[in-house]
Amino acid sequence: MQMAEARKGRTTPEIESVAKAEGKTAEFVMSGLAAGRIVIPRNVKRKSVDVKGIGEGLSVKINANVGTSPDYPKVEEEVEKAKIAVRYGADTIMDLSIGGEVDVIRRRIMDAVEVPIGTVPIYQAAIGMSKRGKDIVDMISDDIFNAIRRHAEDGVDFVTVHCGVTREAVETLQRTGRLLDVVSRGGSFLAAWMLHNGMENPLYSEFDYLLEIAREFDLTLSLGDGMRPGCLADASDAAQFQELITLGELVGRAREEDVQAMVEGPGHLPLSHIEANVKLEKTVCKGAPFYVLGPIVTDIAPGYDHLVGAIGGAMAAWAGADFLCYVTPAEHVCLPGIEEVKEGVIASKIAAHVADVARGTGIELDNEMAKARKKFDWGRQFEIAVDPERAKEMRKKSPPVLDPKVCSMCSELCAIKMVEDYLKKQRQTVR
Amino acid sequence: MQMAEARKGRTTPEIESVAKAEGKTAEFVMSGLAAGRIVIPRNVKRKSVDVKGIGEGLSVKINANVGTSPDYPKVEEEVEKAKIAVRYGADTIMDLSIGGEVDVIRRRIMDAVEVPIGTVPIYQAAIGMSKRGKDIVDMISDDIFNAIRRHAEDGVDFVTVHCGVTREAVETLQRTGRLLDVVSRGGSFLAAWMLHNGMENPLYSEFDYLLEIAREFDLTLSLGDGMRPGCLADASDAAQFQELITLGELVGRAREEDVQAMVEGPGHLPLSHIEANVKLEKTVCKGAPFYVLGPIVTDIAPGYDHLVGAIGGAMAAWAGADFLCYVTPAEHVCLPGIEEVKEGVIASKIAAHVADVARGTGIELDNEMAKARKKFDWGRQFEIAVDPERAKEMRKKSPPVLDPKVCSMCSELCAIKMVEDYLKKQRQTVR
Repeated sequence: MQMAEARKGRTTPEIESVAKAEGKTAEFVMSGLAAGRIVIPRNVKRKSVDVKGIGEGLSVKINANVGTSPDYPKVEEEVEKAKIAVRYGADTIMDLSIGGEVDVIRRRIMDAVEVPIGTVPIYQAAIGMSKRGKDIVDMISDDIFNAIRRHAEDGVDFVTVHCGVTREAVETLQRTGRLLDVVSRGGSFLAAWMLHNGMENPLYSEFDYLLEIAREFDLTLSLGDGMRPGCLADASDAAQFQELITLGELVGRAREEDVQAMVEGPGHLPLSHIEANVKLEKTVCKGAPFYVLGPIVTDIAPGYDHLVGAIGGAMAAWAGADFLCYVTPAEHVCLPGIEEVKEGVIASKIAAHVADVARGTGIELDNEMAKARKKFDWGRQFEIAVDPERAKEMRKKSPPVLDPKVCSMCSELCAIKMVEDYLKKQRQTVR
Repeated sequence: MQMAEARKGRTTPEIESVAKAEGKTAEFVMSGLAAGRIVIPRNVKRKSVDVKGIGEGLSVKINANVGTSPDYPKVEEEVEKAKIAVRYGADTIMDLSIGGEVDVIRRRIMDAVEVPIGTVPIYQAAIGMSKRGKDIVDMISDDIFNAIRRHAEDGVDFVTVHCGVTREAVETLQRTGRLLDVVSRGGSFLAAWMLHNGMENPLYSEFDYLLEIAREFDLTLSLGDGMRPGCLADASDAAQFQELITLGELVGRAREEDVQAMVEGPGHLPLSHIEANVKLEKTVCKGAPFYVLGPIVTDIAPGYDHLVGAIGGAMAAWAGADFLCYVTPAEHVCLPGIEEVKEGVIASKIAAHVADVARGTGIELDNEMAKARKKFDWGRQFEIAVDPERAKEMRKKSPPVLDPKVCSMCSELCAIKMVEDYLKKQRQTVR
């Protein structure tokens, strides 16, 4: 197990690999992992994987969700989405399939890409019930743990487990009220299950059993935010923080068993709430890596939620979040297609880079772009661009006419060219 | 003149109109205008205009730039861009035409839209030189002021004047060095002119004459940031702040003459520099409205600079910037087409709204959306959306199949529906 090794002061090939990619020493990564401030999701059963370090002092990582819905259970398309996402820079992929042959899809995706793979096993448990003609609320604790074990056996590197959706959290929600109650899919299954059965969430009451499975596969736990706010009005409320407090306790218990854990976060938040949310997660969860969805900083932009998520994500990562879950333009409207997946990944990648630069790393690439612009080296500009094709196409659509060196915005009145010319002339005069 | 009236404690129809639109008292707007913390650009010669208030305590406004380049001097297309921009929420339009019949274009745009119009008259002066077969650096001071007067006579409501591009600022740039020198078009004309002629920028040395023209038409001055950084590496440097100090002095001189003035700001800035830049402008320029371009928080995303600008813009406006100049996806690549103008306006509009909410106003719209989502009222969701067509098309492309009420992302496993059902059942049981 990574964490156990790190705590014994031993580096692993995974630690070495992350250290190299991040330009850090192996000791730095090792001590972060030992302390639980860094995770390296990697199931011992996973064959080949390009491991990624997520956490304090490392560059910001991004995740792309793919997966079928009951309405569109197309395997090939989801595999294609995963490939496109990795091509444009997704550090990890989560397969959230809930339609069709989910076992087949998960395995196909794991074969198709080499990045760490995450899943939400309770979806599988829920679908299993439907297939047997039963209701989700009729599942038993074994259904949930068997689904987790099945995913772990397949080599899934991290799983979202909504352990903090406790009876107390749901009661808090009922007492304090919300505009949109629960918007997390997994969270809603468990909330419904508890409301129906009057029992505690098995992922909480049997957390020790979950840790046993995690230990067996060195499965990283991503403690899900089932109570995340689904609109600005519900942001940073009692139910959300009730869950966070529980997650903080569970992070501690996971560490006792050498189980790697990160914590998922909101959700819909006004821009002004983001920093406080990040700081609170970092204190209450004792520095555990923070994995945020969005945050979505306004509710009024369906069709543009990738952009909304990039605003929130850049701010969150700058404030200390470690891992951004992308948001696609299709969020709140429909299952994303391949084009929306690409847009979502690029938006999230930009947000992560913006935060990296704000935190003091990665500006070299921006400087390379500035130099290429100064030299009117368009080929180099395209090379550096997050999406070379898009930039190329755009320039081709409205190419410069009077002077092929510059661009069609200013044409012969290009500021860079003009000042360069006169600075040069002045230098010659002075000589 | 608006400012003179406000200082006498008199409200004007423009003040009343802004107060009503903002949900503020006329006294609030009047005192902000009197103090120079709010501007209401409106040329006395402009016929009909839907006035906008820009500044402290008011909602964040956005501007869209349109205008020809020498490569694409198409009048109709620029008029169309202005209309589209206003349709999607641009509060003002700047006509930055530098190609073809610029007088015709400017007048056509002013007839086509009713929002305040801004221009950069030095472009006209520069084009005038080219037309006479002369070089830009051969222009004389009269060429610049005649262009300003011509625009004012036409009814232009605000003009960008790069008064802070002084010899001192250019010398500071030469001493301290930059990766990208000057990227402001107007700034580059003046820098080249000073380097060639060895004389001071007429917009600075003859600032009193500029104020005379401004008084005559109640023309709002937008003090341009000719020294704005054009890449992250040049951000917040000596040349930039040398100019800002000068602009702060000029704001004071403008106020002495009852001339409304706002200040333009960077440009390319790391996310971590934005708040400091806004605070500095607000102190050095004595609370003058801050009009920011972007800010562009990374250089590596040509084709996506609308999104990059939205990240920077949301952060800047939250920190206190009052007016966001949009950035289109075509920035740094080519002259934007109609589609890019639309994308730019929507991105900027989202950023402005995100900042408004973070500052404590405007969340009602987000709450309306949340309520519509709870009720699965798709018609209402589209109504509220920043781009109803986009959201509608998206839902149409991947419609729900098994349950037409929800969306194709989760289909019958919709979290909102599930929790609602079980909360309802529980309430019935309790009864």
